[in-house]
Amino acid sequence: MRKQITGFSNPTVKYLRSLREKKHRKAAGKFLAEGLRLLTDARESDRLPEMLVMAEKRDPHPLLSELEQAVLAKGGEVIETSTDILAKITGKDNPQAVAGLFAEFDTSLDALDRSGAKIWLVAQALRDPGNLGTMLRTGDAVGAGGLILIDDCADPFSVEAVRASMGAIFTQQLAQARWEDFLPWLRADVDEHGGQLVAASLRDAVPYRGAPYAAPCFILVGNESQGLPEAYEMACDLRVTMPMRGRADSLNAAVAGAVLAYEVLQSIDPA
Amino acid sequence: MRKQITGFSNPTVKYLRSLREKKHRKAAGKFLAEGLRLLTDARESDRLPEMLVMAEKRDPHPLLSELEQAVLAKGGEVIETSTDILAKITGKDNPQAVAGLFAEFDTSLDALDRSGAKIWLVAQALRDPGNLGTMLRTGDAVGAGGLILIDDCADPFSVEAVRASMGAIFTQQLAQARWEDFLPWLRADVDEHGGQLVAASLRDAVPYRGAPYAAPCFILVGNESQGLPEAYEMACDLRVTMPMRGRADSLNAAVAGAVLAYEVLQSIDPA
Repeated sequence: MRKQITGFSNPTVKYLRSLREKKHRKAAGKFLAEGLRLLTDARESDRLPEMLVMAEKRDPHPLLSELEQAVLAKGGEVIETSTDILAKITGKDNPQAVAGLFAEFDTSLDALDRSGAKIWLVAQALRDPGNLGTMLRTGDAVGAGGLILIDDCADPFSVEAVRASMGAIFTQQLAQARWEDFLPWLRADVDEHGGQLVAASLRDAVPYRGAPYAAPCFILVGNESQGLPEAYEMACDLRVTMPMRGRADSLNAAVAGAVLAYEVLQSIDPA
Repeated sequence: MRKQITGFSNPTVKYLRSLREKKHRKAAGKFLAEGLRLLTDARESDRLPEMLVMAEKRDPHPLLSELEQAVLAKGGEVIETSTDILAKITGKDNPQAVAGLFAEFDTSLDALDRSGAKIWLVAQALRDPGNLGTMLRTGDAVGAGGLILIDDCADPFSVEAVRASMGAIFTQQLAQARWEDFLPWLRADVDEHGGQLVAASLRDAVPYRGAPYAAPCFILVGNESQGLPEAYEMACDLRVTMPMRGRADSLNAAVAGAVLAYEVLQSIDPA
């Protein structure tokens, strides 16, 4: 169905705008993603928006036309509106010409297929949605299977996380679990696929360079200000340490995960 | 001098609060940094705040007392105020118990001593203050000399950049320059110290792992959405490429810089 929206007080505008808040996203089970590139990544990963919101004044693009047709063919809505209203919906002064409304994914651990990849990223109590999205993006780059969020993390469906993921929210698998559920899940399947849990740590650790990584390798990164709880670190199969030549004793969480992920990639799956 | 401030409309509160905006920071030549840890890093790097703003209700700490004495001894001001007013000044709901007012540093290229370190980070048109602060933090971790900001970057003295740097704003050298001034500066000194300019690139590049890095190595990272202009890439001494196993063709700028910086560290200055 096609629709034109001209008023700021239109209920659909209010609804879409409300999805910038977590409680409204959770109540609706929906989230927004912006930009033709992200939406194309989504479509190629078999994720179609239920609703497409487009600026009336936009440059024509074959990928956008295809997307429009795909959404309509699936019974979705295509809405045209002003740039100002798009800006209001997305909270951006210069909004992208198109945004899509998606159903949130199933993020249960059981839906993950760990045999599908050699590297997995795991974040514990990661609070910054930008870091979360960046980890998804890094996961895509190293060919990881996905990101597992442990304990209370930022919402992966927030506008900031989706934006920082640069589309990887659609291409990476995503799970959310408590530590007490994650660890048995990881250990349960050991005979068939196993899984090595690795953390950057200062406790009883070996140099990260040349450490005995093994696939599937689960790279665990901790909270931005607290790091990992000691018990979590001690449950790891391997603790590695990165050089710290300055005054600080830690890296940004997303940076630490990326440096480690590239090292693991080189170790277990060189080109 | 010691002072007590109780009113939100106090001119000092207004002044400090105004420093959250770039134009006011530039007009005053001052910036704010929060937290005892950052302020201690600053003091140990010979950067003392001109003014210290502390919450009336705070836990006593010997480092805070030392800082207070040092500021007073230098003729600075020490202000006590309520947590609510501190929150208003810093724009944080749960402010740190202490913030300091600093004079912005000289960020001219000529003030840099390139012989002081084997690694330097260089960012071009980096727009996100969080990425900028993260690069400073990474620079500290790899023992870099500092960060050189090329063309129009985010303001390194913004609250977000200072916060993300985790104190590295005080320990890393910082310079700002246009490309057309940076390149002659880099090349001018070739006989004495030289300087290898390296960028992550897809153009005519060699694998980043095992590339012929040489000290002092200047690692150049481009704008978040545009990457580096082609002419800048072609001016580099070495172009390297990192594995991209997924759909994306790039990493977050701060992540790319960090993965590359750790590789360079391993190559030119292993432990």
